[in-house]
Amino acid sequence: MEIKMAASHAGFLDALSAALPENAIETAGPLLRENSRDFGQLSGDPIEPLAVVFASSVADVQHVLRLASEYKVPVISRGAGTGVSGGVHVLGDAVVLNLSKMNRILEIRPEDEVAVVEPGVINHQLNEAVSEFGLMYAPDPASYKMSTIGGNIATNAGGLRCAKYGVTREAVLSLDVVLADGRLIRVGKNTFKGVAGYDLAALFTGSEGTLGVVVRAVLRLRYLPVDERDIALLFPSLEEAVEGVQLIAKARIQPAILELIDHSTLLILDEQYSTNYAGHGGAMLLARLDGYGAEREETALRSVFADRNAQLSNSADPSATQLIEMRRTSRGDTKDDAYRTGEDVAIPKSKMLEYVHRVQRAARDENVNMRMISHVGDGNLHPTFSVEPEDGNEPLARLDRAVESSVRIALELGGTITGEHGVGLIKKDWLQWEQATEVIELQQQIKNLLDPLNILNPGKAI
Amino acid sequence: MEIKMAASHAGFLDALSAALPENAIETAGPLLRENSRDFGQLSGDPIEPLAVVFASSVADVQHVLRLASEYKVPVISRGAGTGVSGGVHVLGDAVVLNLSKMNRILEIRPEDEVAVVEPGVINHQLNEAVSEFGLMYAPDPASYKMSTIGGNIATNAGGLRCAKYGVTREAVLSLDVVLADGRLIRVGKNTFKGVAGYDLAALFTGSEGTLGVVVRAVLRLRYLPVDERDIALLFPSLEEAVEGVQLIAKARIQPAILELIDHSTLLILDEQYSTNYAGHGGAMLLARLDGYGAEREETALRSVFADRNAQLSNSADPSATQLIEMRRTSRGDTKDDAYRTGEDVAIPKSKMLEYVHRVQRAARDENVNMRMISHVGDGNLHPTFSVEPEDGNEPLARLDRAVESSVRIALELGGTITGEHGVGLIKKDWLQWEQATEVIELQQQIKNLLDPLNILNPGKAI
Repeated sequence: MEIKMAASHAGFLDALSAALPENAIETAGPLLRENSRDFGQLSGDPIEPLAVVFASSVADVQHVLRLASEYKVPVISRGAGTGVSGGVHVLGDAVVLNLSKMNRILEIRPEDEVAVVEPGVINHQLNEAVSEFGLMYAPDPASYKMSTIGGNIATNAGGLRCAKYGVTREAVLSLDVVLADGRLIRVGKNTFKGVAGYDLAALFTGSEGTLGVVVRAVLRLRYLPVDERDIALLFPSLEEAVEGVQLIAKARIQPAILELIDHSTLLILDEQYSTNYAGHGGAMLLARLDGYGAEREETALRSVFADRNAQLSNSADPSATQLIEMRRTSRGDTKDDAYRTGEDVAIPKSKMLEYVHRVQRAARDENVNMRMISHVGDGNLHPTFSVEPEDGNEPLARLDRAVESSVRIALELGGTITGEHGVGLIKKDWLQWEQATEVIELQQQIKNLLDPLNILNPGKAI
Repeated sequence: MEIKMAASHAGFLDALSAALPENAIETAGPLLRENSRDFGQLSGDPIEPLAVVFASSVADVQHVLRLASEYKVPVISRGAGTGVSGGVHVLGDAVVLNLSKMNRILEIRPEDEVAVVEPGVINHQLNEAVSEFGLMYAPDPASYKMSTIGGNIATNAGGLRCAKYGVTREAVLSLDVVLADGRLIRVGKNTFKGVAGYDLAALFTGSEGTLGVVVRAVLRLRYLPVDERDIALLFPSLEEAVEGVQLIAKARIQPAILELIDHSTLLILDEQYSTNYAGHGGAMLLARLDGYGAEREETALRSVFADRNAQLSNSADPSATQLIEMRRTSRGDTKDDAYRTGEDVAIPKSKMLEYVHRVQRAARDENVNMRMISHVGDGNLHPTFSVEPEDGNEPLARLDRAVESSVRIALELGGTITGEHGVGLIKKDWLQWEQATEVIELQQQIKNLLDPLNILNPGKAI
């Protein structure tokens, strides 16, 4: 996948410098390394790009893509780089198009329940800005305090609240996209409903920078809930916690957030926060009930578990809220390293227990540690696998095998290799496990249609 | 657009007959005329297809498409034909592929909150079948008692409940699609979340039979609400009703259904049902509040309008529910004819009043009657325009001009030419009013990629 430095690159960089505002382009220094990757694992050392362009306008983006087309130089567009699938890893000679300075909220139209933003706006900042109107931007990936809307769109980001409010795709109404040749198009619609033509906005959403560069988005907002009730439910065992998820569903309760935390993760939390959840239970559910129904849903939820083996936090106890906030920003650990890999499968909701048991077995067979937190409300599971670096018995090979098993098992149960993180670079080989050759070829044909020179984040996503 | 009968068509029909089960193909008789069109207006007489094939299996569909490719004969796939945009009108020599006999519900997986269906399943039948599990299939176009899931997917159908629960796209998880050359592919995922590769399921959803034929769908179900409260709100004027919509939004109330009925439509209802709404008010809102929040939302709603000029039906009054049921299945009239045209624009929510005033003026200028009902909760408006047939002053030309104005005005206000009905044949010329040439060309290129011989419902949608 590495693309060798061509003599023409000097000409490309000169042309870029001439076309862009002063200080928009960096061709040396620490910014090159900082823009060489995302939070996903790297195999080998990072590869620095030829240059990093900090676009401050649509015109800047168009210049970069026109010149990249002319000189046939790959372009990796990125925001904060908080992705974990290697979606913006530099693979060879390439220019990184950093959109984080295009960070203006262009419009908030409270009566339309819509915001119009540039791609570099931070998810959290958008939520801060719209909250005064009683509105929220619902998708909330764990990175929401750092990640950009552009990056969220590129990966069709999910998060905790999407069980109730939908993922990024459901929030994207219209996109302005700069195409590979520098042309600017507008797709989608300004309205909540609209079926004119093919759903190109959905096609670009989640395409991980391989079909075009999003430079403006019209986003649907949701009502900020008038009420929120957080409840922690501690169960003796994982089995009972999973059964609890089904009982909540059968009571037709739709939590805004429903997270499952297993015993191994409880142990980590206990250590970090000096609590003793692990001593009192085998698994925990964290539920947030919100909106006008929160109170009645809480009553129903407590009634469901009244005669079951579950300890529910009471209304006055702030720990459930604290745990949810902790969970919203992390898995209880830092980013992945060579000895620890976090996964992101999704499975049909009924297969939860079977999945866990089979993956536990697979990890045990490889002598790999496994723990798991899950957006269990929508079947999106994040097992984390780790090995001890000092274990000389091929620890990384065992880790890889355990991870691959976890993905294979998800597929065998009707699931997907990625619930919300995206394919990026790291999951690309697995895509063929999930999708038929003809389906992958069709996507490659669509890619080829939009990016005939293959300059847009080549080697990623499909 | 008419395609002349070629000598090879006899060969095509012979080959079809040989490939398909007995009685699957009709080449004469009333079924040809019945399958020549949908509920949309026709210009001129219906054109009968060469044949109607009633597919009863995926293999049947594959046979039809393989042979249609071989003989280069257009294929119009259809379900119940309840569309109103001429999406399945026959335009020349073509075979109609009727999928209404592929009407099995293949699986209901209550714990996964998923149903798997063939395309000919009636929307209403699916809802009947899943209701015993406390689940519902949310998209509810007015045709829900007659229209098929396949047709709903082809048009990305909306309905009343989508303000809260999303349109068809949000319910479609995975599709099996027979491509133009007869190959069968599976796109999307079985899970609620999933971001592997491009969103091909969204691309096929709403593509109106021009990219492939859906033969199986995995659908996300929602919880059947534990509570429903219907309230009719009668306002002195349309202006106050529209203001009421904003007040409901500002109170962060999310009705499952929120419909606006104008004075002219109230007059029709009064005549049909011997009521006297029009005598007591100028416009009506119909709200359905549902789920665990219904009770508190009702309290909030009544509080919002306590000191305003609005008459709210009380809890015991069944008329609000009756009006919603009436509204769910019609606009208060029968299907369009030459002298009456129903429109289907969507606009940003804040532009409602400006839209109505401008369209009223445009209709008056042409001496055309106008009335309107709207899915006002999501800005999807259905004005109906009519002229008196006996009015000799070019009534149809005036009608056309008023309709075109209504669409132009929607676009000027940031809206779309079609909120939920689809482009079909009737709105095709308007697509270029909404979308740039480059965007339409991109869609044509995608169409060409998937259907290089242009045999799939040619002349429609894009």
